[in-house]
Amino acid sequence: MVLRKEMFDLPEGVLYLDGNSLGPLPKAAQARVSGMIADEWGQMLIRGWNEAGWMAQPARIGDKVGRLIGAPEGSVVMGDTLSIKVYQAVASALKMRPGRKVILSDTGNFPTDLYMVQGLINTLDQSYELKTVAPEDVAGAIDDTIAAVMLTEVDYRTGRKHDMKAITEIAHASGAVMIWDLAHSAGAVPVDLAGSNCEMAVGCTYKYLNGGPGAPAFIYVRPDLAGRVQPALAGWMGHDAPFDFDQDYRPAGGIERMRVGTPPIIQLAALEAAMEVWDGVDMAEVRKASIALQELFIKEVEARVPALTLASPRDAQQRGSQVSFRFEEGYAAMQALIARGVIGDFRAPDTMRFGFTPLYLDQEDVLAAVAHIETVMRDKLWDDPQYRKRSRVT
Amino acid sequence: MVLRKEMFDLPEGVLYLDGNSLGPLPKAAQARVSGMIADEWGQMLIRGWNEAGWMAQPARIGDKVGRLIGAPEGSVVMGDTLSIKVYQAVASALKMRPGRKVILSDTGNFPTDLYMVQGLINTLDQSYELKTVAPEDVAGAIDDTIAAVMLTEVDYRTGRKHDMKAITEIAHASGAVMIWDLAHSAGAVPVDLAGSNCEMAVGCTYKYLNGGPGAPAFIYVRPDLAGRVQPALAGWMGHDAPFDFDQDYRPAGGIERMRVGTPPIIQLAALEAAMEVWDGVDMAEVRKASIALQELFIKEVEARVPALTLASPRDAQQRGSQVSFRFEEGYAAMQALIARGVIGDFRAPDTMRFGFTPLYLDQEDVLAAVAHIETVMRDKLWDDPQYRKRSRVT
Repeated sequence: MVLRKEMFDLPEGVLYLDGNSLGPLPKAAQARVSGMIADEWGQMLIRGWNEAGWMAQPARIGDKVGRLIGAPEGSVVMGDTLSIKVYQAVASALKMRPGRKVILSDTGNFPTDLYMVQGLINTLDQSYELKTVAPEDVAGAIDDTIAAVMLTEVDYRTGRKHDMKAITEIAHASGAVMIWDLAHSAGAVPVDLAGSNCEMAVGCTYKYLNGGPGAPAFIYVRPDLAGRVQPALAGWMGHDAPFDFDQDYRPAGGIERMRVGTPPIIQLAALEAAMEVWDGVDMAEVRKASIALQELFIKEVEARVPALTLASPRDAQQRGSQVSFRFEEGYAAMQALIARGVIGDFRAPDTMRFGFTPLYLDQEDVLAAVAHIETVMRDKLWDDPQYRKRSRVT
Repeated sequence: MVLRKEMFDLPEGVLYLDGNSLGPLPKAAQARVSGMIADEWGQMLIRGWNEAGWMAQPARIGDKVGRLIGAPEGSVVMGDTLSIKVYQAVASALKMRPGRKVILSDTGNFPTDLYMVQGLINTLDQSYELKTVAPEDVAGAIDDTIAAVMLTEVDYRTGRKHDMKAITEIAHASGAVMIWDLAHSAGAVPVDLAGSNCEMAVGCTYKYLNGGPGAPAFIYVRPDLAGRVQPALAGWMGHDAPFDFDQDYRPAGGIERMRVGTPPIIQLAALEAAMEVWDGVDMAEVRKASIALQELFIKEVEARVPALTLASPRDAQQRGSQVSFRFEEGYAAMQALIARGVIGDFRAPDTMRFGFTPLYLDQEDVLAAVAHIETVMRDKLWDDPQYRKRSRVT
């Protein structure tokens, strides 16, 4: 049983189907941050770096995240944002394959991953190339010109899921470095990083891991490479001896070399508390419960709301932990749902997204959400000017 | 009058002379973070991005920081860490001076600034060079091979202060881009960024600005360049229309292009509250009060503790807001002081640092601290094995 609603502060009257975008507040996070600010920052002041263990937090929490994604101890470290971690991973991958000039990704990748590579190429030189193909064409596009394949396992719009192990094998057969973005995987689906044999992985912690808005990202480097990978972002926290204040950068022995600057201690405190919610949770159980919720949702929506078209793969094994439906007025429909307390989100041009998070959602919640969707669609509640005016952030 | 002790939670029995490393807790920060977590993350959930104004926070707080460093509205934005911001600034500077291959800095710069440039050069190609000279030799080392001069205004060890305006003029006379690191300047000394005419500046907010451990950094780009500078770290938050989810990066019109990934909303909440402490504070008054405290400290220490040698410039105009003394057993002496509640810090090999922060320190505090220093030195309290064992972080 993975349901543990009592560990979350969920607002009254809200059915929250947007944990794939921002996870809700774990009660322990509120208490932990208050305590950290008062007792550590307030009372220990600078001594907190040693006495409260701030310095060790990025690696300590990295191990907690690592357990959920099949990464061995000491192979994951926290810090910065997912965009920054993508940059680090791709820049390091290019160093591992000198002479190869192409980074391969797919058009389903989250834009910031593509942007960060574009920024890197613009910084390096124009002989590098970011090549994107449709998600289903990735395997066929891998050849020995590819330095690195960089993909997000679960598509942020449709929930379509790549086969990590199979694609990694194909990448390796052509001598390419494999980088996985686990933004929609960590805490959502079982991930076996060690088994996949990929070189690097990155992800964020504010979605299914419930670390709070702007929670720090993570990066994984395969243990046999962690002591060899060249960090583009050579910050002092990744130095072998940061407090020697050497003039020359000398990377730390292992994954800690992927640390950059001073870690965000308050965000890390929230995240550390959020990770305690996962103590004893088996990702296989989470997956089973998630699929049951998704299947129920799809069955009920398709039976009761024919105007919505399934945008996600029908085969549960090929989905992550979200279900998307297409509807031309999806933006307005989602606004009407949110006004009724059913919070999902919308991605242009027409995708309504619903995230399934069995730690705090059960079948009753799903059925209640479908009832609201049915009402909104049957009564055309979306056809109201107040819901059609788009705001910048959705 | 700039003293406002009542706005800070200062521990009983502590004389805090380390605000140059980590500022103390502003009372408003504790309340603001608790409220933000409960009411915004907890209740608004994903809607906080719009309804609580999270998305606009990096620019809104940037303007508050900008006021203290002489930057016009809309020219400063918050995010990431100082190390990341250094990388962004230097990478962008190199794009502005194609063909020039040398980045000039000094040996007094904080190591992470040098490391980040080393990492950038390693990522680009070895034809680039980081050249470091002694701080007093910087002006003479600037010639037309220099793409960018990157300096920290106030030396983290000695407090020695560069002349921003003069060096910027010399850099510009040779056609170099000027980047200033204001880590030990923002909130410590008056800074006139607009008047200095430098192209870019970066800094952190956990020192004199009291934003909390791991508080986000800031970056300034001169307004005439903000719409033209090329971001190496091309993240979606710096995109012209992040929620269009285009496949191609197109930088935002102004300083917002220096944003990268999802901002750390909890840290930003703490920082925003910390910045309110500065409302109505005149940096010229802060400077006057800081120099009075420093002069009193130097006079008393030199009169009463002859074993300590002044490491900072004697001329107050050439110092930032800290005073350093050299003592061979400085590490142990600082540990003995900390055990007595006088918190300064130590930088290898022999420098004892004391920060002066007139928002929460007065002359009585300074005299009380000197009395402890006198006791520790007179009674050789540092000559105790427990104080001589160095921990990794100091």
